[in-house]
This record gives sequence, structure tokens and C-alpha cells, in this order.
Amino acid sequence: MSILPSFSIAAPHEMPAKGSIALVGAGPGAADLLTLRAAARLRTADVIFYDRLVDPEVLAMAGATTELVFVGKEVGAHSWPQEQINAVIVAAALRGQNVVRLKSGDPGIFGRAAEELEAARMHGIEVEIVPGVTAAMAAAAHAGMPLTTRGETDALVLATGHAREGDPMPDCARHAKPGVTLALYMAVGQSARITTSLLETGMPEDAPLTIAVEVSKAGERMITGRLVDLPALLVQHKVKGCAAIITSWPKMAEPGVALEATAKALA
Amino acid sequence: MSILPSFSIAAPHEMPAKGSIALVGAGPGAADLLTLRAAARLRTADVIFYDRLVDPEVLAMAGATTELVFVGKEVGAHSWPQEQINAVIVAAALRGQNVVRLKSGDPGIFGRAAEELEAARMHGIEVEIVPGVTAAMAAAAHAGMPLTTRGETDALVLATGHAREGDPMPDCARHAKPGVTLALYMAVGQSARITTSLLETGMPEDAPLTIAVEVSKAGERMITGRLVDLPALLVQHKVKGCAAIITSWPKMAEPGVALEATAKALA
Repeated sequence: MSILPSFSIAAPHEMPAKGSIALVGAGPGAADLLTLRAAARLRTADVIFYDRLVDPEVLAMAGATTELVFVGKEVGAHSWPQEQINAVIVAAALRGQNVVRLKSGDPGIFGRAAEELEAARMHGIEVEIVPGVTAAMAAAAHAGMPLTTRGETDALVLATGHAREGDPMPDCARHAKPGVTLALYMAVGQSARITTSLLETGMPEDAPLTIAVEVSKAGERMITGRLVDLPALLVQHKVKGCAAIITSWPKMAEPGVALEATAKALA
Repeated sequence: MSILPSFSIAAPHEMPAKGSIALVGAGPGAADLLTLRAAARLRTADVIFYDRLVDPEVLAMAGATTELVFVGKEVGAHSWPQEQINAVIVAAALRGQNVVRLKSGDPGIFGRAAEELEAARMHGIEVEIVPGVTAAMAAAAHAGMPLTTRGETDALVLATGHAREGDPMPDCARHAKPGVTLALYMAVGQSARITTSLLETGMPEDAPLTIAVEVSKAGERMITGRLVDLPALLVQHKVKGCAAIITSWPKMAEPGVALEATAKALA
């Protein structure tokens, strides 16, 4: 394939035994939020491809001879295209290496795992996913709050505020309804539009809001407030990069229920 | 409080220093899917309250002097009421113990965390949540599939098929729409009703379906098929207890898009 970096392909009888690829969830950032299985994969990997500025303690879990390859965005440079990442992990596994592709959070959630899985399988490479703690769960844990609360919310929606170039922006608001907790990823840049459309669906202005910035990392901040104030809070607290936005629409705020409660109170 | 088990309350000046409570996510079952932080809390706990038949390897991570207390359902007996669990964890912390309340999956998701948090805070006890890998993520990882796929799904909904006694059954189908992956917890008993209502919302009969039974535990099974066959598959494979049901409605199955594609193909 032309997207593979150049390396000589040996004749079949000279090919090394195929290695393997593990898509490993690194969790939200803190080294101790990796799973034991993820830590074990880091220890035994021949090579680890990582792209975020992960906690140095995470990379320190690698084995003594493990090669560490940064495939992310250098300051002032573009990040690697996904196709190029697919190509280098496949090439390493075809050379016989046990490859770890370290991914933020859980590899299955907004993680481009489908493309890496497909690339591996197309080449007959054994591939494993090691799940991880996703940002919403870590954010709620750090904020000391549950994501679902019996009698108030019975569903959690993880949605993204980000679309690939040329695609329409995802409409997060279509998931909002009484009984739902919304956890929005990559939504900081779209917060004004999202807030407006959430309120238009009928979400209460004072729906509880948590903005979890750099969850479990050195710069962690938890900002709480009301949904209506989301855009202003992001400006006020200078939130730019990586944040999970969590807001919930409790069932008790359902108009029908509220009306009934009011009727009872007035009776 | 009358719900507290009887123990003598010392005068304030004789009270022991308060302990703490950690609500710790045990992950889906396998011991190596705990986070490093969860493992550390098990090691240093004075007492661990657990309720599911967790992997014995998980409990083996406890410290040498850690007390292990089962607060779950014995064969043929009822499980502990939530109020009683709240009471015993609070009582232990008030006695000065560092308490771990070990919970399946992630404590914040369908885990009754709100009630335990409230009980702890009402007594001024320091409380921490340690996040964990929730069943849907482990199930998808074990099935080797992502939960969101760029261009097909941009939201993941975790919903429950179970309601408390007297409450109306949750309507999982209201979350189904093109672009959504649904992960249903505690839905096995309601599968016929749920399948019917999902199909009524317009979900394709052949929407991809994964039934993850006893994820990461000894009896793990992955059953795949089509949404329309969910009830039959549960019968055929004798699935009764703990299973996560994952199905997705890819955007490309949206009628408008399908029509457009067909029109192009015919042109």
C-alpha cells in the first residue's frame, strides 16, 4: 500500500512472525487511572505509539527496552494524519513487534479505533482492545457526583461537539430529554451553539453543569454552575483545550411532573 | 438514626477520628480491569464492603488485615436494602475505619452512588469516588469493536432496562436515532418489549447487535446478530443474568441517506 512508509518487504519464507497490536486505553490522564491490564501491556510492548501529552509516569511504565514513538501534534506542527498512524502501527506489527497504540480514555469512544482495527485486520494482524476509563466517568468521580441518579436520570449520553472537516456539526441537543445526563466531549469550541440548542429543546436554564478541565492531569479544574452560563464560564475561566462538559436534565424538571407537583401543592 | 445498626455512640470528646469512604469501581469483573488506583485503595482499606460475586482475585488484592464484608445477595436470600448498606459503611467510617465500598463497573453509572454519597456527607465523612471501566466499554473491547465510529455514530447512550418497583419501565427506545450506539444495562428481562419499541422508532431490523454475557468473567460469552433477533438469541443461548446489550443505528441507515445512495446507484 502506498500509505505505508517505505521498508523492504521480504519474500514470504523470510517474513518475520507477525507481531500484534493492542489498542490500549490510557484513561483520562493520571497514571494510576490506567487498568492493571493496560499497565501490563505497556510493560511487555516492543513499541508504544502515543499521541497526547500523557503523564510522563504513564510512559515510565513501559519496559526497559520498549521503544516510545510520539505520533501526535508537536507545538506549531500538524498532528499525524490517521492513515499515517494506521500505517506505522501495521508496519511495526508486520516486522514482528508487539505494538501498543496508547489512546486517551477508552479506545472505543471517539478514539478512531475503527480505522486502526480495520488496518490491522486487513493485514491479518492479531488485535486486542484494552478498555479504559473515559473522561466523563473520571470527571464525575473527581467532582464527587454520580452520572445517573435513581429517580432523576436513567440514561447517560456521551456525545461529541466536534465533526470532521466537511461534515455537519453533530447536534448534541437531539439527545437531551428529561432523565438524561449529557457528557459532551470536544465541545468547548461549540459551547454557545450547543447551549442555545439545549435550551431550545426545553432543558432548564439552571440544569446543573460541571466543566471538567484537564481531568486527573496536573492542570485539573472543576467548574460548576448552571447550563445557561456555560459559554460565559468558559470565557471567565479561560477554558480552551481539553474539557468534558457534563449537564443533566432531571426527570423532576419534566413539565408534566412539575405541573402535577404544583397542582398538588396548590390543592 | 434508626436505620443505623446498634452500636454505642461515644460522647464527642471520646469519638474516634473519622475514617473515610471510597466508592471504588471494580470494573466489569476481571481483576486486571481494575485501575491501579482501585487496587491501591483495596490494599490500604480497613474494611471492604462488596456485593457482587466478584472475582476472588479482586478480593485477594485487599491488605493482609483488611476485613471483607459481603453485603450482597446470598443464594436464596434477599439482597441487602440500600439503606442498610448506607448505614454500615457510614458506621464503619464513624468508627474511624478507611472504608472501601466496592462497586461493579463504574460507581457513577447505575450504581446507587448518589445515596451512598449523601449518607456519607450527611455525617461529614470524607468521600472519594474511584472511577472504573463500565460494562459497555469492556464488552465492546472484548468484542473487538468500537462504540463510536466516525461517520456512522457520534453518540453513545448508556441506558437501563430496569426500574425500581412501582416506577414505570424506562423507555430505552426514546434514545434511539441514527448515529447512536445504544448500550443497555439490566435489559435482558425486558428484551421483547425493548426490541419492539426500538424497531417502532425506525431502527433497522438488521442493526448490528452484540450481547455480552458475563463480560470479562469466567462465563464470558459474546453473541452477535441482528437487533430483530434479540429476544430469540437470549432464549437460544439461555442468557438470564448479567449481560450488556449493544446495538447501533449507523447514520448511513438513515432513510434520506439510503434513498440518496440508491438514487445515485440507479442514475
